[in-house]
Amino acid sequence: MSYQAPLRDMHFVLHELFDVSAHCELLGNGLDRELIDGVLEEAAAFTAHEVAPLNRNSDEEGCQLVDGNVTTPKGFRAAYKQFVENGWASMTGPVEFGGQGFPQLVACNFHEMLMSASLSFRVYSGLTEGAVLALHKHGSAELQSAYLGKMVSGEWTGTMCLTEPQAGTDLALLRTKAEPQADGSYRISGSKIFISGGEQDLSDNIIHLVLARLPDAPAGVKGISLFLVPKVLPDAARNALSCGAIEHKMGIKGASTCVMNFDGATGWLIGDANQGLACMFTMMNDARFQVGLQGLGIAEAAFQGALRYARERLQSRSLTGAQQPEKAADPIIVHPDVRRMLLTQKTLVEGSRMLAAYTARQLDLEHGHPDTAARKAAGTRAALLIPIVKAFFTDMGQEVSSHAVQVYGGHGFIREWGMEQLMRDSRITQLYEGTNGIQALDLIRRKLLGDGGGELTALIGEFSELASSLAQRPALAEMASVVGTRLVEWRELAGEVIAMSQRDAQEIGACSVDFLQYSAYALLAGLWLHAATRAQDALDAGTGEQAFYQAKLHSAAFYLRRVLPRASSHREALLGGAECLMAMPEESFAF
Amino acid sequence: MSYQAPLRDMHFVLHELFDVSAHCELLGNGLDRELIDGVLEEAAAFTAHEVAPLNRNSDEEGCQLVDGNVTTPKGFRAAYKQFVENGWASMTGPVEFGGQGFPQLVACNFHEMLMSASLSFRVYSGLTEGAVLALHKHGSAELQSAYLGKMVSGEWTGTMCLTEPQAGTDLALLRTKAEPQADGSYRISGSKIFISGGEQDLSDNIIHLVLARLPDAPAGVKGISLFLVPKVLPDAARNALSCGAIEHKMGIKGASTCVMNFDGATGWLIGDANQGLACMFTMMNDARFQVGLQGLGIAEAAFQGALRYARERLQSRSLTGAQQPEKAADPIIVHPDVRRMLLTQKTLVEGSRMLAAYTARQLDLEHGHPDTAARKAAGTRAALLIPIVKAFFTDMGQEVSSHAVQVYGGHGFIREWGMEQLMRDSRITQLYEGTNGIQALDLIRRKLLGDGGGELTALIGEFSELASSLAQRPALAEMASVVGTRLVEWRELAGEVIAMSQRDAQEIGACSVDFLQYSAYALLAGLWLHAATRAQDALDAGTGEQAFYQAKLHSAAFYLRRVLPRASSHREALLGGAECLMAMPEESFAF
Repeated sequence: MSYQAPLRDMHFVLHELFDVSAHCELLGNGLDRELIDGVLEEAAAFTAHEVAPLNRNSDEEGCQLVDGNVTTPKGFRAAYKQFVENGWASMTGPVEFGGQGFPQLVACNFHEMLMSASLSFRVYSGLTEGAVLALHKHGSAELQSAYLGKMVSGEWTGTMCLTEPQAGTDLALLRTKAEPQADGSYRISGSKIFISGGEQDLSDNIIHLVLARLPDAPAGVKGISLFLVPKVLPDAARNALSCGAIEHKMGIKGASTCVMNFDGATGWLIGDANQGLACMFTMMNDARFQVGLQGLGIAEAAFQGALRYARERLQSRSLTGAQQPEKAADPIIVHPDVRRMLLTQKTLVEGSRMLAAYTARQLDLEHGHPDTAARKAAGTRAALLIPIVKAFFTDMGQEVSSHAVQVYGGHGFIREWGMEQLMRDSRITQLYEGTNGIQALDLIRRKLLGDGGGELTALIGEFSELASSLAQRPALAEMASVVGTRLVEWRELAGEVIAMSQRDAQEIGACSVDFLQYSAYALLAGLWLHAATRAQDALDAGTGEQAFYQAKLHSAAFYLRRVLPRASSHREALLGGAECLMAMPEESFAF
Repeated sequence: MSYQAPLRDMHFVLHELFDVSAHCELLGNGLDRELIDGVLEEAAAFTAHEVAPLNRNSDEEGCQLVDGNVTTPKGFRAAYKQFVENGWASMTGPVEFGGQGFPQLVACNFHEMLMSASLSFRVYSGLTEGAVLALHKHGSAELQSAYLGKMVSGEWTGTMCLTEPQAGTDLALLRTKAEPQADGSYRISGSKIFISGGEQDLSDNIIHLVLARLPDAPAGVKGISLFLVPKVLPDAARNALSCGAIEHKMGIKGASTCVMNFDGATGWLIGDANQGLACMFTMMNDARFQVGLQGLGIAEAAFQGALRYARERLQSRSLTGAQQPEKAADPIIVHPDVRRMLLTQKTLVEGSRMLAAYTARQLDLEHGHPDTAARKAAGTRAALLIPIVKAFFTDMGQEVSSHAVQVYGGHGFIREWGMEQLMRDSRITQLYEGTNGIQALDLIRRKLLGDGGGELTALIGEFSELASSLAQRPALAEMASVVGTRLVEWRELAGEVIAMSQRDAQEIGACSVDFLQYSAYALLAGLWLHAATRAQDALDAGTGEQAFYQAKLHSAAFYLRRVLPRASSHREALLGGAECLMAMPEESFAF
């Protein structure tokens, strides 16, 4: 499947919506527009020419496990070598360990491209970047100097070893053990499942970050510690760990998903004893944002595929008569229902791209703003947005890839056309790094109830201000009014959710998914209003790219009229309350 | 994956909602309750023990094409032999050709079971039944006597050969040719794609129903004729047709999907020349109903899988404190969001089962009511419902199987657990027999605009009467009011859709999918009210099955509070109109 990075839209978001140059200046990273655009152009070429062509075959070939060694699909090794040698692996890595220190606001575009080109290929490097973050923040100087350089460069990869057969969402049930040794190291014993990239043939070493319990650890999540456990030890000996099996999965077949057995493997503590979950959360927040980008990337690839087919496939005539009478039939893009699918894809993808950038900017400010209070504020904002990005983008990726299958008709179901692979690949994103249900609980419990709705109110206020400011601008007043009304409703709904949750703890779980979805649609409405404003600004200023900006206005109108209404049913369903969920006795679900 | 037919619920629908005994008496088919219940019990055993166990492997093994012959997965041949020998193939077949003449109201339960047990296995026999219908209605006496007996028994199977590479939705583009021969037969030449069961090793002969053009035929759909083209000719010679390839698909891998090449194959005309589409529509209406049942069957299997897992999987504690403190964690069915998914599955499945039976009853009356006017009325009602059943049930099957994957968490993505297979298998149902977009167009164009909304108004009136009649019954008045309000809204919305469509033909396509979805949710609301009424009747009468009927009331309440709200956003989106769809210039969809 061919893929071309949507550079024009990325530039719109980067420069016209979020002024990345000013952002970089504030962060003091020395990047300017020319450099950023140049890097993204090279990134577009790399993903289109080196990565995307591997994706279809990787699905057919999958990974093979022979004698404990995993072979990745044809081409992955060579592409990964280039990925490392050309510096793509180190884009966001810390400068003091050889990284290039690019802000997330820039990097998220490259990462989206990678996801579009091949989710399987990206899995290996994505987790490495998360492991770098955790090690950089919590690891000892010794561990950092021993491991970070090669992990940042991508020569060595990283994994996250959390899940065990009996402990998925509920890490309190974790059993893997760590026994302290006289030399300060630990012996790790236990079995982990669903370890992405746990074994592979891309790198010489694999650095596992493993959650385990110390002998005297308290029960539950307060007794979990984080360990660094390399495949190859500093003395070049193989560590006592092995890949016992790889999973046969619905999708991302080019990414190995391993059962990892630790048989008294040597590891070192990262951070303090019993603080493993907190350390892992550093990695998790990043990983959740990355998984959100996976949904976005898959969705963009699906939109491109669907649009290409809708323009080429001739079938039936327009409802208002032949549009291309010289052809045997009209291209199916003339049909309103095909357009409905395409525009739903387009506005969800572009809307999500704006939200990804908005969130990336907060992540950058959280880590790099010169002012402490601003760092804290950005962190709070990012924490609020991350569960929305993770869950909404991945649900969206599934929906958008399913639309692509539908646009292709029967061909959508056939493997060689590539659309069904996108559906299969994207389905995992709703499950891993915390299922989307868990994201929604996180949004309500920690983020909304955590501060009584303060941060959400501030976020809504930002967009309300924009909506109010447009009331007197004729070209935008109608859109602004639709958005403004929804924002008021959102704030009221948040208040209702807090009140319901305080009355009955079951309401937290009963309303969580609908509230997350509602919030995402409302947030995208605000961002589409922002985009429409910039587009109208450009048109008013007499741009040379009229069609581009006009399309932004059309897209905003479509989103507000035909997609945003989904928020209404999420609101209505949520207000239906928990009682009708909890009343059914467990034994009465089936007879 | 284990599967048990939901017999109790089927009995509720058959006997308590739709009084199948009275139905059979009216049709004069001599079936009584004892016989019907006995057959369904045997059907449950056959599907659970003979068919369901084949499903998982059929996905792994798939079909193989070697030297033009297709091998079906292990066990399919033996199970199909039993299917024929035990008379399951002939359940609905016409009595004069050895069939058992069961009404659809009964048979739809068996067919649902088959779909749940193995969609791949069911594909072969399902199309045969459709082919029998078309041949029985339109074929000459000679063709009928030569073919119907063995097709009804299932010894020979049937296919539908419509699609060609350039002609999918748009059959006007069909190119396959039929040249008349001196002996009254025709030579058929052309290539057909996506032919389910086009070649297989289950039956000695395969009877292809092929759409083709006569030499002098007018262009477009008015020049298409239907032909019977057997794999093996009456003189036992192989016909000049062959399977050129089988498709590699997302799912239903146990069902062969063939490229069929007709190289001057001998065939015979079914019905009149150039009337092929009308003849095929007989088969199509049945096939669309059957595909609807596929969605339902998959959804039931997915619900069973999810419920089983939710009861067994221990993970985290209830939001209100440990429910099973003696265990390491609570079963996940205690969590409101897991319940939300399970109850969404349950109420969509049971609601759809009611609608399937409602529709099946109309199909039976259309063909077997003693009164001509009643036959016609039932036919009109069935025609209105079929596109809703086909599109809504199959979208529902995809949603419900996706919920099952989600309930399983990471395990949902792993093949051995079977949930992801249900998602993959069900995805085709939204595409074949007319994509769901085409169903929605059919609903608006032929069914709604066709009679100015008359039949729909009659249907809504039926449920409105029920709702009004319950206003004074305290236990049901609140539900009745919710449903009644929605029915009024539905009627108004239908009027709006008609008005919009008359103003602008693009509105037909712009509102079609949302109107179909709205209609389905409103219809299920009416049926849930019907179910609640019967349940309350039973409780008032002092039933011994209190838990069962109480669960029906809980389910109805859940559906109305948490699922029906989806109708609101379909309404709002639809009223957003066509303009925002059509305004975008084709070249502006991407830059």
